[in-house]
Amino acid sequence: MNDVTHELRDFVSERDWSQFHSPENLAKSISIESGELLECFQWSGPDYSSAEVRDELADVLTYCLLLADRLGLDPKEIVRQKLQRTREKYPTEKARGRSTKYDRL
Amino acid sequence: MNDVTHELRDFVSERDWSQFHSPENLAKSISIESGELLECFQWSGPDYSSAEVRDELADVLTYCLLLADRLGLDPKEIVRQKLQRTREKYPTEKARGRSTKYDRL
Amino acid sequence: MNDVTHELRDFVSERDWSQFHSPENLAKSISIESGELLECFQWSGPDYSSAEVRDELADVLTYCLLLADRLGLDPKEIVRQKLQRTREKYPTEKARGRSTKYDRL
Amino acid sequence: MNDVTHELRDFVSERDWSQFHSPENLAKSISIESGELLECFQWSGPDYSSAEVRDELADVLTYCLLLADRLGLDPKEIVRQKLQRTREKYPTEKARGRSTKYDRL
Repeated sequence: MNDVTHELRDFVSERDWSQFHSPENLAKSISIESGELLECFQWSGPDYSSAEVRDELADVLTYCLLLADRLGLDPKEIVRQKLQRTREKYPTEKARGRSTKYDRL
Repeated sequence: MNDVTHELRDFVSERDWSQFHSPENLAKSISIESGELLECFQWSGPDYSSAEVRDELADVLTYCLLLADRLGLDPKEIVRQKLQRTREKYPTEKARGRSTKYDRL
Repeated sequence: MNDVTHELRDFVSERDWSQFHSPENLAKSISIESGELLECFQWSGPDYSSAEVRDELADVLTYCLLLADRLGLDPKEIVRQKLQRTREKYPTEKARGRSTKYDRL
Repeated sequence: MNDVTHELRDFVSERDWSQFHSPENLAKSISIESGELLECFQWSGPDYSSAEVRDELADVLTYCLLLADRLGLDPKEIVRQKLQRTREKYPTEKARGRSTKYDRL
């Protein structure tokens, strides 16, 4: 994602917007945009507009990348680290085919 | 992000979890995890735990990557396409230094 | 809801918590708790725990009442006012049996 | 809130909308609207529009009342019951003046 992050950085700095991009404001923005993503599925789960989902997902991802960049985190790396821990919390033999939360497995 | 997506795919398929990963369920999951991310900033904006933010951001990103993969979307590409449209909605000369929404600029 | 609001006020003031209850922090809290409510339906819509839904809904409502109180708003009154406007946006003859948003009706 | 709930019920039934109001869809709606409420505080915490906050809070409350009604719950009663348990989790002597979560008190 490195090159996209650079494009986002340029976009923000050309507009002098980094003053608004505190970690807290970015976290609020991720929540706001994920609400808009969810709205694509508000009344009917399987019956959604792909174009709208794509746009709203892009917005959530954009703020995620901005927050990662702000905190000096590598998005790929933190997903991978978390995945390692999730693997341990959900061993295949116990978790297979079940959506049960790890603390009730 | 391609190789992380592959790791996520393996993780999901080893647990036979793709049956739970409808686009709608993934959108709900993004919302739920972004609420947990926001919780890191609930009572105090600037005073947050970096480790917790990293973990919760990783969760949001994970579900974003899973949703993109489910819909056959390239995360980088959709962020870039959206950025192009946002550039047009927020021309530098009008938007510089202002957090005003485009429809009020 | 007046008497519940009084109980909530006492609860907050006994703990000297109104310093944390800025409108912004309460709005974040409503989002956070509504994520926890949504978690009751994360992987399976119709198959939820009534006790958990009740508890999480109570949390969302609690922060809504606290925010209304903080802003000097009567919860009943604002719901009623909004309903009046929603009635006009969704006239029965156009909206009956359809979940379409008003701007597409 | 009883009389408002009756008005909401009439509003929904006149439009034959109860078919859309599954508990899950109402929980999604609460999340979506709480994101819109949070948007009032996106870039600037203390500098918000009271009229917009009032409207968005009304939307969150409306869906909360609809969900409570759908599940046969009394909103006042569930807030009060939860408050009783929260009182026990946050005894005044330990919690006074602190925003620490109960499991770290």
